[in-house]
Parts: sequence; C-alpha cells; structure tokens
Amino acid sequence: MNYRFSESFADLRPSAIREILKHTSGSSVIPFAAGNPSPEAFPAEQLRAVTARITARPPEQWLQYGISEGYGPLRDLLKERLARRGLKKDSDDLIIVSGAQQGIDLAAQVFCDPGDAVICENPSFIGSLNAFRSHGIRLFGVPVREDGPDTEALLGVIKTQKRAKLLYLIPNFQNPTGITTSARKRGMIYEMARDHGLAVIEDDPYGDLRFAGADVPPMKTLDETGSVIYCGSFSKLIAPGMRVGYLLADSAVIAKVTVAKQAADVHTNLLAQITVHEFLTGGGLELHKERIRAVYRRKYGLMKKGLEENLPEGVSFTRPEGGLFVLVTLPRGANIPDLCERCLKNGLAIVPGSAFSVDPDEPCRTVRLNFSTPSDEQIIQGCRILGRQIKETELDG
Amino acid sequence: MNYRFSESFADLRPSAIREILKHTSGSSVIPFAAGNPSPEAFPAEQLRAVTARITARPPEQWLQYGISEGYGPLRDLLKERLARRGLKKDSDDLIIVSGAQQGIDLAAQVFCDPGDAVICENPSFIGSLNAFRSHGIRLFGVPVREDGPDTEALLGVIKTQKRAKLLYLIPNFQNPTGITTSARKRGMIYEMARDHGLAVIEDDPYGDLRFAGADVPPMKTLDETGSVIYCGSFSKLIAPGMRVGYLLADSAVIAKVTVAKQAADVHTNLLAQITVHEFLTGGGLELHKERIRAVYRRKYGLMKKGLEENLPEGVSFTRPEGGLFVLVTLPRGANIPDLCERCLKNGLAIVPGSAFSVDPDEPCRTVRLNFSTPSDEQIIQGCRILGRQIKETELDG
Repeated sequence: MNYRFSESFADLRPSAIREILKHTSGSSVIPFAAGNPSPEAFPAEQLRAVTARITARPPEQWLQYGISEGYGPLRDLLKERLARRGLKKDSDDLIIVSGAQQGIDLAAQVFCDPGDAVICENPSFIGSLNAFRSHGIRLFGVPVREDGPDTEALLGVIKTQKRAKLLYLIPNFQNPTGITTSARKRGMIYEMARDHGLAVIEDDPYGDLRFAGADVPPMKTLDETGSVIYCGSFSKLIAPGMRVGYLLADSAVIAKVTVAKQAADVHTNLLAQITVHEFLTGGGLELHKERIRAVYRRKYGLMKKGLEENLPEGVSFTRPEGGLFVLVTLPRGANIPDLCERCLKNGLAIVPGSAFSVDPDEPCRTVRLNFSTPSDEQIIQGCRILGRQIKETELDG
Repeated sequence: MNYRFSESFADLRPSAIREILKHTSGSSVIPFAAGNPSPEAFPAEQLRAVTARITARPPEQWLQYGISEGYGPLRDLLKERLARRGLKKDSDDLIIVSGAQQGIDLAAQVFCDPGDAVICENPSFIGSLNAFRSHGIRLFGVPVREDGPDTEALLGVIKTQKRAKLLYLIPNFQNPTGITTSARKRGMIYEMARDHGLAVIEDDPYGDLRFAGADVPPMKTLDETGSVIYCGSFSKLIAPGMRVGYLLADSAVIAKVTVAKQAADVHTNLLAQITVHEFLTGGGLELHKERIRAVYRRKYGLMKKGLEENLPEGVSFTRPEGGLFVLVTLPRGANIPDLCERCLKNGLAIVPGSAFSVDPDEPCRTVRLNFSTPSDEQIIQGCRILGRQIKETELDG
C-alpha cells in the first residue's frame, strides 16, 4: 500500500539523540549523550514499599479507569504546595499528565493550528521542538545568553511573528545549555508576553535539581494575568519510567487541556499517580532531594574538573547550577559531525548541538554533555576522550 | 488574558458521557452510563504478586526511561502471539501505546491533516470520534446494520470523499451498538479499502470478551497489503487504570507512529508494561479469560432478561455476543433527552445515542446501556426503571 501520511509527519525526523542511543545502548560506549537520571538517584526502596501498600487495597482503587484531570488527592496536594510557593493563583487549576512531554504536546494542540508559531530558546529541548513540529507548528528561535534568552531578539520576534501563540521556555538549567534565566529577565519576559497577549509555557523539569547557587522564583509566581502555563515533572525527582507530570495554568486553559487529554490517552496510569502521591506525603521527600542533589553535585563536579583539565584553549563550556547538562562550544569552523563520529569510535557518545537547533541544518559549533547517566569513572574517562578528540579535530582544521 | 485557542479545540465539547458521569459518580445512581470493567473482573491477586516481583528487581529495570516502541519482551511476546493467530505478517511491526485511545489518536495524527476525513460506523465510540475531531478531522458516518456497517453506503462514501484517509471500525461488539461485523462483511470491507487505497483502523478492545457464539477472524488476518492497523487493548482483559494497549501495522506505519509516540509522551509507563508481560506469561491467562467471560455472560443475561420483561412493545434492543454494551431503539419521535432526564431523576444513568453520533445534533431515538459496571441487583432494578420511564415517555408523546 502506498501510504499518504499527514504533512506534519511526512518529513518529521526521529530524534537525533534517539538514533545515537539506539547505536550505543547496551554497549560499553560512555553515555554522555543520554538524559537519564542517575540510577543512584531513584528512591527505589520507598517506591517498593509504597507500591506494595497501594496494591494491597481494593482493586478498583488502583486498577479501574480514573478521570482525565488526574488522581484527586495528588491534584489537591500539588495545588496546595504550588499555592504555598506562590505559583498557583486562585483562578488556576492543575491537570496530571503522562510526563511533562505530554503537557507540552497537549498545550501545543490546544493553542496552535498548523502554520501557527511557537517562539523558543535556540537551542532548546528536542522533545518539545519535535512535539511542536508534529503539529505543523513553525518555530522561531531566540539566542540564549549567559543569563537567559536574548530579550532584544525576543521582542523583535514577538513583534514580527503575528501567528506566534506560545513562548516556550526552560528557565532553570536549560536543556541543552544548562543556563538559568535570571530573575530580572524572567520579569522582563513575563511582561513582554503579557503585553503582547502571548501565552508562556514555563517548562521546569529540573527545578528540584539545583546543586549550587540560590533558587530563582519561577515566572509563574509573577503571573497576574493567567499568561503562564507551568509544566512540572516527577521524572527527575522520582523516576521517568512512571511518566507523571502536571500542568498548572488558568482554569480556562486547563479545561481545554483536559478535553485534549481525554482524546489523547483518557488519563495517566493510576498506580503511578497514587505512588507519586504517597511518596510526596511519605515524609522522606526533603531528605531524598538532598540525596539526589548531592549525587548531581558530585557528578557535575567531576565533569567540570575533567573538562577544565582536558579541553584545549579556545573551547568553552557552560557552568550550570543544576540539572543534567553542560554545553561545550568549539572555535568557529569546528567540524562537529566529525568530532561526534571520532568520539563514538573512541568509545564516547555525545550529541551535536544541531540536534537542539530550531533549524538542525544550520552550522553549529556546540556539543551537549550529560553527567547524570555515566558513572563517576566514565565521566573522568569521557572528558579525556573528548579533550583528545577535540585536539585532533583542530589539527585537521 | 484573552486566550486564542486552536480551531480544533475552540469548539470541541467534552464527552457527553463524561458530563453524565461527573454528576453521578459516587452517588447511588445506577450506572448504566459508564463503560468500566466489572471490579469482579480484575485479576487483582495476580497483579499484586507480579508487581511485588518486579519492584524487587534493580530500580533501573522498572524506574528508568524506556524506549518509545515499548518494553522489548512485551513487544516480542505480542508479535509472536499475533503471528500465531494469523494477524501479524512478516512486514508488520508493533508498538506499545498508553491505551487503545492513544493508538487511535496517534494513527489519526500520522495520517490526517486538518480537513482530511475519517469514515466510521455511525454511531461509534465517542472517545475515538473526539480524538479525530481534536485534530480537525471531518467525520463521515455509515449506518450500522445487524451484521455490521452498511457496505453499499460505505462504498458510496469512499467513492465521494476524496480526502478520506482512514476507515475506523470496531468489528467486535461495537461501541455503542454491541453489533459484530460478519466475516463476509469484513472481507468485503477489506477489499473496498484496499482497492481505494484507504487505511483501516481495526479497533478491537472487546475481542477477548466474547460470551456467546463463535469468534470471527479479525480483518487484520485478511491483510495482504498492509492496509489494516490493528489496535488492541489490555483495559478490559486486565485493567484500564494501567493504560496499556498496542498497534500492529505495516512497519512503515509503525515507524511513523513511533515518532508521534515519542512526541506525545516518550513511552508508556514502564512498570505497567512489565506487569502486562509477566501477567500474560504467568500461566493463568486462559483461566482468567474464562472467568471474566462468565462474569459478563451472567451480567448480560440479567440485562437481556430485564429488558425483555420491562420494555414495552415497539422498543427493541441489540443482542451482543460479547463486550459491554446494549443499544436500545425507541419508536420514531421518542424524546430521548427527556427520557434520560427522567431516568436520572429516578436513579438510573443512561447515555443518549446522540453522544455517539457523527453529528450529535441530528435526531436520535436510541440509548446505550452498559452491563459491566452495575451490580447484578442494579441491573435488575435499572431495567425496571428504564421500562417504566419509557412507558411514561410514550404517554407524553
């Protein structure tokens, strides 16, 4: 049969990272390419106990259909905690989604028709960019500076792109740059969006993973107009295999997202939702956060040291205060595809920055490194391989 | 803020059933409106044991990110079993989805642009119709006869609707009619679709719930051209709260669906996928099937008897050989909204047939009844209420 696929999907490429991982998973290649939480960071014992407790209850409590909005006690708990932190306003509501990825995907559908536009940081998270692309949405990127998006460039795009419906941002430890948007810029960007009637998706999957510096209040805390859709995730705080996240937004937005959710997958896995609720109320949360922050602090420290020791002059890298990623920038003219291939041949998987670009075909001189997935020994070893390969790449140049 | 929602979502109504359930859940109203499996039908003991076994394993096996295609051992098992039953061809592949609803939603996205059309039975499953509508897809309905869709009408629609990309069918115990499409018609429809280059979504959530008559081979067994996308679910066989289903189709289609899945929710809850795998290989499957078929046979028997005893002359109902639903047809001119309201006032929730209609505003003289959710006593009681209210509705006419 000669398949006639939709326009959005006819040309959509699978994630470049995915292709790299396919060729390296299960092998002895050092995984700087993935974005998996460290296995050390899973609260496995607690989850085991919680699961046993839930499955001992009457079956209809954990096996029956749930409602599309999500498990009531978990919604209530999150709303209460987010209100206490100043994120939830009285007019806001919350829906549980099957991971933050679904939150982004549903928000995109609810706001955008094909041909509409989303403005985002450039580079940005490939999963979200592909979700937008899968709905025929055009992307307009704004460069990322040391303290967040270039606000002048942002204003220019907002003013010229009349079909822009959403502004997609990752203010904490951005993927792939690791950069945190300053409080000042968060305020400026919120005001720009508000003044131009643009809704903001504030994607915050890594907010709990701060291992240095002081917390910067989410843009959602500034939101007096219902302009900000805050997207949270338990993939890094608890476990990604569960696929549980949430959207907090004005109740009119959540009502639309609920209709979209019902059409997308009816509701999120019920046992996982109850598990998150019991874990969050179980009392060990603060201790667990401290524990995982210590893991990532140690791993980032090892990577920072390894890069400082091994990268040649002229090569720079970002210094994140949390999250999972570091972005390395090479001198102009560097052959990144060649570098990635050389690294792979020498046992190290890295991702070219172009994978995160709004236009993956434009020239790029960055690579993204992940420090949560590799073991400590692999971090040290991987930085050596990277340094050596960069030096040899330069010799070719 | 003045939200500018997308065209598809601006007017999309929440499911009518959902609205009914919202007003009746937790109350003493007899639930003929839902579509929940009977709590008796859950293999709770086995799932409890399986879950304990899985959560005792190293955390990365059940808590880490999985791949978008699904849990390898479950995919392999399903492919092998579907090949043995003649459904899977060598060129076919399989993806695990977060319930059949997601399978339908992703297939729709992969094939249809806004303005494209899907041809379906009329009436049909509201969840699927809303998934299509949510992507701006136009629906063309074909009446359902005693042995399945009206094939003459179907051919007419296929020939005239040039933007039709998909044919959506529920051949076993259709929702809401309970009707099973005959083997002869399955063959005719497959050939029509094949000859006109139309892909078929064969949605089969109830196939395991046959309590009378002989199995009819799925349309997918006839598929020599890669025209049929077979959609299976574990919501009725095991438990809907898990949200696990699958799509079986030509590998070119599954490759596109995998890209869509990655953008939609990355992958399906990992613990649930492993649980399904362990349950299917645990040895108790055939016994469990017999047990749930006995439950539904008994419940349907009670409803059939109750309707025969209580419905007045001129009112007919379908006799399904499986599944969860019976469709009742009233005489021309019956005021169905009034009947539903009267029933609700008297403690019985039912769904008007219009909820399942391609055009919910067109006149309708049917109501859908569910026999899996109510208790045995509630089925007997509910049929009495329905009979009485229909008689009083007629007196008004």
